[in-house]
Amino acid sequence: VNELDIIACLSGLSDPQFFKNDACCLAGNIFTKDILIENVHFLPDCNPKNLAKKALRVNLSDIASCGATPKFYLLGIALNNAAKQKCWIEEFILGLSQDQEKYQIRLLGGDTIIHDGPITISVTMIGSVNDGITLKRNGAKIDDLVCVSGTIGDSYLGLLSYKGDIAPDKYFKSRYNLPEPKVELGKKILNIATSCIDISDGLLHDANHIAQNSGVMIEINSDLVPVSDNANALLIQDPGLKDKMIVAGDDYELLFTVPQKFQDQIKDYNCTVIGKVKQGSGVSLIKKGKKLTGFKKLGFVHK
Amino acid sequence: VNELDIIACLSGLSDPQFFKNDACCLAGNIFTKDILIENVHFLPDCNPKNLAKKALRVNLSDIASCGATPKFYLLGIALNNAAKQKCWIEEFILGLSQDQEKYQIRLLGGDTIIHDGPITISVTMIGSVNDGITLKRNGAKIDDLVCVSGTIGDSYLGLLSYKGDIAPDKYFKSRYNLPEPKVELGKKILNIATSCIDISDGLLHDANHIAQNSGVMIEINSDLVPVSDNANALLIQDPGLKDKMIVAGDDYELLFTVPQKFQDQIKDYNCTVIGKVKQGSGVSLIKKGKKLTGFKKLGFVHK
Repeated sequence: VNELDIIACLSGLSDPQFFKNDACCLAGNIFTKDILIENVHFLPDCNPKNLAKKALRVNLSDIASCGATPKFYLLGIALNNAAKQKCWIEEFILGLSQDQEKYQIRLLGGDTIIHDGPITISVTMIGSVNDGITLKRNGAKIDDLVCVSGTIGDSYLGLLSYKGDIAPDKYFKSRYNLPEPKVELGKKILNIATSCIDISDGLLHDANHIAQNSGVMIEINSDLVPVSDNANALLIQDPGLKDKMIVAGDDYELLFTVPQKFQDQIKDYNCTVIGKVKQGSGVSLIKKGKKLTGFKKLGFVHK
Repeated sequence: VNELDIIACLSGLSDPQFFKNDACCLAGNIFTKDILIENVHFLPDCNPKNLAKKALRVNLSDIASCGATPKFYLLGIALNNAAKQKCWIEEFILGLSQDQEKYQIRLLGGDTIIHDGPITISVTMIGSVNDGITLKRNGAKIDDLVCVSGTIGDSYLGLLSYKGDIAPDKYFKSRYNLPEPKVELGKKILNIATSCIDISDGLLHDANHIAQNSGVMIEINSDLVPVSDNANALLIQDPGLKDKMIVAGDDYELLFTVPQKFQDQIKDYNCTVIGKVKQGSGVSLIKKGKKLTGFKKLGFVHK
C-alpha cells in the first residue's frame, strides 16, 4: 500500500469536486493542508525561522495555484527536546511573524505537543476567492499555451549543493530552503488561465496532473524551460542536468495553460511559454527538436 | 520552555478573540485542530478503527463546546510501516466512514505521508454556527449554576484498567478508547449557557479555564459530581479515588454555566448541577461539607 492507494481510499469519503490542486474549495473558501516532518521534509539541524516559513509557503503555493487570496492558518506543532529550546522557538515564531506580514495572513489557532518523536508541523491554510471562481487542473484546452513562472530546477540544484554533489551555491540553497509561492501571479491569471498547478512534484509530473485532469496531452519543449543564470552556468558544462531539473520537485512555481491570445500578457507577468496543449494524453517532451514520449515519474523513455 | 509558553508566544501572532474553547470562530465558521501522535495520545497497538474515530471526536468535542454544528474536516496522516498495511488502512478508513455517517461530516481534503516515525493524525474540523453566536469560556456570571453532562472519571478509570491498576473493565476501557462528544447538547444549550468548555484536561482544570476567562470563582461540590454505576462500585471500596477522577482528563463531557432559572431544563438534558459561580477567582471545591481551595494542576491543597 502506498500513498496513492491511501489517497484513493480517502477520496471515497469526500465529494470528488472538493479535491482540486491539493486544495479544496467550499463556499468561496480554499483550504489546504500540508504536513512537514523532520527527516522526511527537512533536516534536523535546519534553521527554525526558515522552517516556519517553508511550512507556511508550501501551503501558500497551493493557495496560489487556485488563484486565491490567503487569509488565515491553523498551526499544529509537535516539538521534541531539541526544538523546545527557547531560542529555537523564538526563531520559529519570528519566521511565522515575518511571513504573516509578507503574505498578510493571521494565525487562527492550533495545537501544541511536546514529544520524543520527529518535529512535525501541520498547517491548514484558508484562502478566499471571489464568487467561488478558482483556478483548476481540469480546464486545459487544445491549442492553449503551456506557461511557467520563474525558473525551474534551482531547488533541485540546492539539494545537490547540500549533498555535495555540486559546488556549494548560496542561491541554489536559498531556493531549496525557502520557496517563493506565486500568490500574486495566481490572482493575476485567475481570469485568463484555463488550468493551473503549482510545481511541487516536478515540472513534468505536475504537467501530467493537468494532462490527466483535462483529458489532453501537454507538450513541453525542454529547450524553452527557463533556468536561472546560475543553473545556466552549470548546464554549459553538463547539459544532461536539465533532464533531471525538469523532473525534480520543490520549485513552487506555477504551471498553467492559457488561450493563445494572451501570449503578450504572459510575458508581462514574467512567465515563459514552454509548450502547447495537444490532443492525446500524458506529457510529451521535445528536446533539441526531437519528440520524446512515455512519461514516467523519474524521467523519460526514448522512443 | 513548555507548551503553555509556546502557546503564549503563538497567541501574539493571532487576534485574541480567535482563541476560544480550543476552537476559533471566523465569519460563522468554527475551526479546531487537534493532533494525535503515537506514544503520546495512543498506544502503537491500538485499534485503527477506534483511532480514526478518536481523532475526529476530540475535534468534534471542541466543536460541541462552541455549540456549533460540525460540517467538514481536513485530515493529515503520517503513517509508518506498521500502519501502511492494507488491513490497518481499511480499518482506519472504516472508522472515518462510520463517524462521517454518525456526525454527518465530510472529508474535504488533506495530506498523506509515509515515514519511519510515529503514526501522526492531524485533523482540522470545520463547524458552523448561526449568526456567529457561539458558546464561549468568558461569560460565566455570579450565581450561575455550574453544570456537567454525563459522568466524570470513567476515561481515567479506563486508563487505570489498561495499566492493570484496577480490575479490567470493558465499560471503562470503551470510555477511554472512544469519547462521545456532546455535539447535540452543545447546540441545545447554545441559547441558555453563559459559558462552556469540553472537559479534556480534567474537570477542575477546565473549570479553572472558565473561572480565569470569566473573572469569577467556580465552586464545585465534589459529592455532586456524577459518576457511572461502575465507578460508584469502585468508590464504595476506595472513596479517595474520586479526588483523582475529577482532576484526570479525557472525559469529553461539557462543563457549562447557566442562570438559575434554567435549572429544570438542565435536568431534561440529563445534565447535573455540580456547583455555583461565585465572586473571586480560581476553583473552590466542597467535599463532605468542607471547603477546599488552592487549586493546582494535579490536586487540591487543604487550607
